[in-house]
Amino acid sequence: MKFGECLENVHSKMPLIHNITNYVTVNDVANVLLACGGSPIMADESEEVEDITSICGGLNINIGTLNRHTIPAMFKAGKKANELGHPVLLDPVGAGASSLRTDTAKQLLEDIHFSVIRGNISEIKTLAAGSGSTRGVDADVADAVTEENLTEAIDFVKNFAKATGSIIAVTGAIDLVSDGEHCYVIRNGKAQMGKITGTGCQLSGLMTAYITANPKHMLEAAAAAVCVMGVAGEIGYAHLQSYEGNATYRNRIIDAIANMDAETLEREANYELY
Amino acid sequence: MKFGECLENVHSKMPLIHNITNYVTVNDVANVLLACGGSPIMADESEEVEDITSICGGLNINIGTLNRHTIPAMFKAGKKANELGHPVLLDPVGAGASSLRTDTAKQLLEDIHFSVIRGNISEIKTLAAGSGSTRGVDADVADAVTEENLTEAIDFVKNFAKATGSIIAVTGAIDLVSDGEHCYVIRNGKAQMGKITGTGCQLSGLMTAYITANPKHMLEAAAAAVCVMGVAGEIGYAHLQSYEGNATYRNRIIDAIANMDAETLEREANYELY
Amino acid sequence: MKFGECLENVHSKMPLIHNITNYVTVNDVANVLLACGGSPIMADESEEVEDITSICGGLNINIGTLNRHTIPAMFKAGKKANELGHPVLLDPVGAGASSLRTDTAKQLLEDIHFSVIRGNISEIKTLAAGSGSTRGVDADVADAVTEENLTEAIDFVKNFAKATGSIIAVTGAIDLVSDGEHCYVIRNGKAQMGKITGTGCQLSGLMTAYITANPKHMLEAAAAAVCVMGVAGEIGYAHLQSYEGNATYRNRIIDAIANMDAETLEREANYELY
Repeated sequence: MKFGECLENVHSKMPLIHNITNYVTVNDVANVLLACGGSPIMADESEEVEDITSICGGLNINIGTLNRHTIPAMFKAGKKANELGHPVLLDPVGAGASSLRTDTAKQLLEDIHFSVIRGNISEIKTLAAGSGSTRGVDADVADAVTEENLTEAIDFVKNFAKATGSIIAVTGAIDLVSDGEHCYVIRNGKAQMGKITGTGCQLSGLMTAYITANPKHMLEAAAAAVCVMGVAGEIGYAHLQSYEGNATYRNRIIDAIANMDAETLEREANYELY
Repeated sequence: MKFGECLENVHSKMPLIHNITNYVTVNDVANVLLACGGSPIMADESEEVEDITSICGGLNINIGTLNRHTIPAMFKAGKKANELGHPVLLDPVGAGASSLRTDTAKQLLEDIHFSVIRGNISEIKTLAAGSGSTRGVDADVADAVTEENLTEAIDFVKNFAKATGSIIAVTGAIDLVSDGEHCYVIRNGKAQMGKITGTGCQLSGLMTAYITANPKHMLEAAAAAVCVMGVAGEIGYAHLQSYEGNATYRNRIIDAIANMDAETLEREANYELY
Repeated sequence: MKFGECLENVHSKMPLIHNITNYVTVNDVANVLLACGGSPIMADESEEVEDITSICGGLNINIGTLNRHTIPAMFKAGKKANELGHPVLLDPVGAGASSLRTDTAKQLLEDIHFSVIRGNISEIKTLAAGSGSTRGVDADVADAVTEENLTEAIDFVKNFAKATGSIIAVTGAIDLVSDGEHCYVIRNGKAQMGKITGTGCQLSGLMTAYITANPKHMLEAAAAAVCVMGVAGEIGYAHLQSYEGNATYRNRIIDAIANMDAETLEREANYELY
């Protein structure tokens, strides 16, 4: 399935996405979901998450500001979404930065089947090996996916996808999206996106809408979502004035997502399939 | 009282508003309150809400990301505000989407007198009938107020206002604001405002400032607030470039609220009184 | 040490800052930290704050939306940071507005050594005297630092710095930053910054990065941070169109922080040393 079709399915189906996410970037996640053609609901109280998940099409779990009251809500919502056959995405923000985050992410992986796990390379390595060197929520530079280590990185991502039965999306300067058999290698986006808080969280929200609207083509949908974010980062950057910086850029990227059409996405998506 | 006078009273009195609101749109609510001439305080810890409400002029309760710890704070603050004779507004975000939200909203209506209840038609129907078909936080399309069902909608809103003793503000493509006797029918705003998260929450914050600064003319003040938001939506849209979308539009609307004066409001407000 | 050197140290060291802050302005604080050259982590769950503080260089505690679950996290993180010799900043948002805020801020002062305490004059007076007249989170106008009461205000700030062993930063139309011996009097910024929610919180985040990157010159670093924010407020204002207001201005200020260099800071910083 073409990436443009994935986009058009989001526009036509307007998937309603349940987000249990952090309070740092939650507003941006909601606006990105609206921009891409989806619809957001945020709810993290245990007493209501099963109700909310039931009326939604997909679930996005993000551990960015984990607390003891929302952890049980993540498990309840995830199990309910699994029962209902809804796509579920995990964004293990900061896995490796604290025992609580690492342990919670690992327990989530044991109890819930995730359609997609999306993070930076340090977070994904932490989940894979228990030996990650995550320092904070930004990727450990020593662990970046580069042209030099690309083959090893692809193997790692494919193997972790096979082991978990989830699509694995590792994002950074080079993005990798694999279902264990195939791996998209994507080179869209701008380095300056790293100076905006929450572009990863935004992508996770967007990606949940894409896999929810394209349930039989989740690999392509997840890769398409990465390209949408990256292309929007390129378009948004092109409109920046010299006196503008990361705050205006944040808005320009969301604006570009709102204006993205299938033709632009197909033309600007820059990827190879391994 | 003219809408322009309502606006000028907000500018001159700078009402301090206590907000117990959701973490998705809270920053926008604070910036809208500052933009319109008011001043915001956000506080949702039970131990301090009575202190905070006591130093404020009005209270805005929004159940958008309800949790078991802030629910008691809503009741305590609401009762205190009632004791002090402060205007209190309820925004029943997502009532109908979960039992927790529906039940909490209904219990709030029983225990606290609200000056104004503001929501979309699905949320208000849920409160009125226990039979709402709310799906998430966006209005059920089948339940929209349209030119075709306008007479019935006005009757419904007037009746619910009489039953509750509150001003009811139903917002959507056509907005209705009634105290049970009269009903403003307002046709300002742009459809694209629905692609921005939290324009409803923002309006609730703004409206609380308007009713607080105009305590003897709350119906006009509530209707004026709806017009301020709608006119700002029109002005903000006029400044958008072709490459801009919902993120920039969000800012333009708040900017337009900051620049709104009585003359512009009077000239651009588009309403009828039934 | 020159203010420009302080800035360049932030750029080169990219300090990782742990923030326990309010949910109103948290996104802006994260984006300001990225803009200035630092890196943010937000974490407020007691179970993980010691882990998070340990991988960071500095800690920023802000009591803007205090709740009973994050209060213990503030004490744990603060003690851990003290043990590790990390700079710790306190932003006592709304101290004086409720007993909970006042009491918590005072207890934090007793149990934790703060490198810097930054607030408006009402909040700082509340901490100093127990007799503040804070009304909400905005400074009490009667208590503003003005040209008329400047000498008394400098004495007050110097004395409170001596009493606490902390650098005291009082921000408003005129900003004062003192270590008890010397006092910077800074006249940068624009009055319109007061119409944006969270410029104080943003400054606290930025200042924590500055003191963390300049641990042997904290007084200059704290004063430099105040000048960065003020100069950015002036630059951001210069780019505003007549139809723009506080929402766009918020972004322009963060943009200007992202583009700030040592030369601009040195040229535009407007201060005297007493």
